[in-house]
Amino acid sequence: MIATDPAPVSRKAVVIGAGPVGCLAALALAKRGFSVELYEGRPDIRLPSSKATLQRRSINLAISHRGIAALESIEPATAQRFLESAIPMRGRMIHKLSGELDSQPYDRDGQCINSIDRSLLNEGLLDEAAASPNIQVFFNHRVVAADFDDKTLAIRDTTSNTEKSTMFDLCIGADGSYSVIRRQMMRVVRMNYTQEYIRDEYLELKMPAGIDRCGEPMFLLDPNHLHIWPRHSFMLIALPNKDKTFTCTVFAPAEEFDRLHTPDSIISWFRTNFPDALHTIGEKSLVEDFMNNPRSPLICTKANPYHYKDRAIILGDAAHSMVPFYGQGLNAGLEDVRILATLLDEEGVTSMPPIYDPQNHYDRRLSNALQRYTETRHEDLIAILDLAMHNYVEMRHSVTQLSYLFRKTLDTFLYSITSPRVVALTSLIPILAKLPYPTIKPRGWLPLYTMVTFRPDISYATVQKRAATQASILTALSWIGVTGLGAAGAWLTRKIFLYYFERRW
Amino acid sequence: MIATDPAPVSRKAVVIGAGPVGCLAALALAKRGFSVELYEGRPDIRLPSSKATLQRRSINLAISHRGIAALESIEPATAQRFLESAIPMRGRMIHKLSGELDSQPYDRDGQCINSIDRSLLNEGLLDEAAASPNIQVFFNHRVVAADFDDKTLAIRDTTSNTEKSTMFDLCIGADGSYSVIRRQMMRVVRMNYTQEYIRDEYLELKMPAGIDRCGEPMFLLDPNHLHIWPRHSFMLIALPNKDKTFTCTVFAPAEEFDRLHTPDSIISWFRTNFPDALHTIGEKSLVEDFMNNPRSPLICTKANPYHYKDRAIILGDAAHSMVPFYGQGLNAGLEDVRILATLLDEEGVTSMPPIYDPQNHYDRRLSNALQRYTETRHEDLIAILDLAMHNYVEMRHSVTQLSYLFRKTLDTFLYSITSPRVVALTSLIPILAKLPYPTIKPRGWLPLYTMVTFRPDISYATVQKRAATQASILTALSWIGVTGLGAAGAWLTRKIFLYYFERRW
Repeated sequence: MIATDPAPVSRKAVVIGAGPVGCLAALALAKRGFSVELYEGRPDIRLPSSKATLQRRSINLAISHRGIAALESIEPATAQRFLESAIPMRGRMIHKLSGELDSQPYDRDGQCINSIDRSLLNEGLLDEAAASPNIQVFFNHRVVAADFDDKTLAIRDTTSNTEKSTMFDLCIGADGSYSVIRRQMMRVVRMNYTQEYIRDEYLELKMPAGIDRCGEPMFLLDPNHLHIWPRHSFMLIALPNKDKTFTCTVFAPAEEFDRLHTPDSIISWFRTNFPDALHTIGEKSLVEDFMNNPRSPLICTKANPYHYKDRAIILGDAAHSMVPFYGQGLNAGLEDVRILATLLDEEGVTSMPPIYDPQNHYDRRLSNALQRYTETRHEDLIAILDLAMHNYVEMRHSVTQLSYLFRKTLDTFLYSITSPRVVALTSLIPILAKLPYPTIKPRGWLPLYTMVTFRPDISYATVQKRAATQASILTALSWIGVTGLGAAGAWLTRKIFLYYFERRW
Repeated sequence: MIATDPAPVSRKAVVIGAGPVGCLAALALAKRGFSVELYEGRPDIRLPSSKATLQRRSINLAISHRGIAALESIEPATAQRFLESAIPMRGRMIHKLSGELDSQPYDRDGQCINSIDRSLLNEGLLDEAAASPNIQVFFNHRVVAADFDDKTLAIRDTTSNTEKSTMFDLCIGADGSYSVIRRQMMRVVRMNYTQEYIRDEYLELKMPAGIDRCGEPMFLLDPNHLHIWPRHSFMLIALPNKDKTFTCTVFAPAEEFDRLHTPDSIISWFRTNFPDALHTIGEKSLVEDFMNNPRSPLICTKANPYHYKDRAIILGDAAHSMVPFYGQGLNAGLEDVRILATLLDEEGVTSMPPIYDPQNHYDRRLSNALQRYTETRHEDLIAILDLAMHNYVEMRHSVTQLSYLFRKTLDTFLYSITSPRVVALTSLIPILAKLPYPTIKPRGWLPLYTMVTFRPDISYATVQKRAATQASILTALSWIGVTGLGAAGAWLTRKIFLYYFERRW
């Protein structure tokens, strides 16, 4: 194994999980001279044989400025390529029960989130990783056990059903919500850990493309919106795909799904709640997807610390699975890599033989970087986990409420009078990618959604604190507004009353 | 395996973990006709060879009415025997820094908690289990994997290093904080789970017996108290043992322990904070224990649900590890067994072939009993977990505060004017053991400690709600009292002022 290393002097990092976060982490370490082994338990998603098995899994996701800034900081060319293949979504399109549509832009300045094909992103990053001379990629390799004190992993090749042991200097666990690396770390780290399943589950449906006059496929809904059918205790959403189809997702409590087990009940439920979507999806396709696609749980996990000494760290879903309602899951995971890379650089970590701490016999620089990661990142991750949980209520319920729309108008108004208009996204990226960490304090009034989605220069924790302050100001202003309206109303009532009174008597 | 079953018609239960909770669960099922296999990963603690390895572990614990009522409901003779071997503790003895002692009784009616030898309790229950014709006990047997859908466990005999597979109808996980059964259940159950390490750690020390005038060993402190040296951010406690020694436990933040790594620093820390304890423990013994005994973490774990269908359930620390500050950890675990047994009886579960639910192909009665356990027990367990966490502040800090003593006096006064005096513990037990579940609503004013510790007829959740109401009344009364005192003080000041004023001028 060592013989194939490109630079024998460099240290070895193993990355577990070749999803977007794992690939980006491998690339970040390879750029810093580490010799990287990237292990993935599943087959290579780029092989045609894998595509069939992946079809039933979530296929698109929303990527926004934080994810893009992270990609940009490590793989600028790739970031630009992804943006070109993405479909920009400028706002939410609320589908009311009456069929009426309400477009709510995400940002005053027209900034967008991007609907992107998950496998396209993953495949692109895998291609980059495979092309790097410092990275070796292994598919169908599962971690069986980890000895972090001995710095070895036991890994099973599920193709040949053989087991091997591999040494490492740094182990990165990017192996998702049910992370093996996290579980193995818990044996040596006193890790606080929480996992919580929310009462809702989700199920994906395909909305086909239409045919235009020239016989070409066309979108059946506006492609530049994230479509939402909010129905208070459940909802349907739809994101556009490059092939002019939409991927729809139903989010509903398990008991709601339990009632829908016959074709008739499914169609009738859609006819009652989502009549326009039923029309575009089509009854046959709806029933087929609904009966065959899996109902998946939604889990929220929190951990702390994320690292062990100078040698192991968990990133992405392995460290923080969040509910998908802020579209920040992958963005936060990619941002993890950007922040880790920044801290490695700040602490002067290189692939050269380390400066050992004479007392503890471990690499002081690496240990400092990982320690700082846990210390600074935890607050941010808890903030976005909580914001994501909270946004579900907004998406399925609040967006239809008059009070919400009033606050949102006020919010946007305050934003427009206090903040200068920002430059367009594409010119912003190179600057964002070079941001220091921890991040700056924002100035002026900024809506919560704008800060979370379009401002990677503001940490999630700062966003949450700032949003709380702004929310209480909005509440106060709303009360003042209501009181003012009430007073005006009373004055008007009196006037009208007096007018009639004078006329009658 | 089936050939050795005492009654071939009866169904099989496997209990994992032969601690007090596991043993009691095995006995409860055996009494209901189940054929029980009890598996323990460690060697038999009754063997002389095991005793040495156990010496460094926690050796005594406080058992109170809930634990006793649970033992009584399943093994009445054993319960009485344990009580006779226990040392009653009537209250807390607060050791102030000045050396001054303050005895704070636990209960107006003189009810006590009991300091009991952990291994004595465990050995006694193991003897009972081994004597039961329906129970087979296996030591040095570890669960490797569980297939709950197939109702089989893979178990490794660590003595012969062989693996076997065993079938079950019901699997009970009583295998402690790091439960394998819980982890295996998480693969099939969407279990919410939290583990949290608190900032403090603990370390045990031995306080030797003294010698009286006749050369006989004697207690160096009052044996009928739980001794506490509260020092705000850390504390020392001591519980009496039958051999006239005390087992002391230091609870302190990890950073505090980190500073104490030389004999001098340990002695000087004790001299500053616990001068009287240093005197009774002795410098040599203190340093030896402090340097050699392990510093252990304190973990709090929460889970929900506790069961899977009609076939698996976790009890005791496997389901709820709590910090030890209410002395309720084992009591709650034993109560788990009493409540499960009550629910099994209420649902008519017997060892006879089950009544299968035609739709789901599982035993409806057993499934109902386990479902009801999760539904009713969860609220209680969360309540005691929170109360235990909160009591740490009371033990190490509040007990020394004037405001606490004022509230406590008021609390006891309200108790004495609203509640009749209760009968003595021993005559109460047979009644307590036959309590229905869920439990009754208490009447009159009852101090929190009394409800948690001496009233197994009141569920923990009811205790917590009632205590919250009482606490707000106490706060209101305290404010009225303070205001009254203030007014009286002002009146008195005025009087004195006027008196002098009149005399002088």
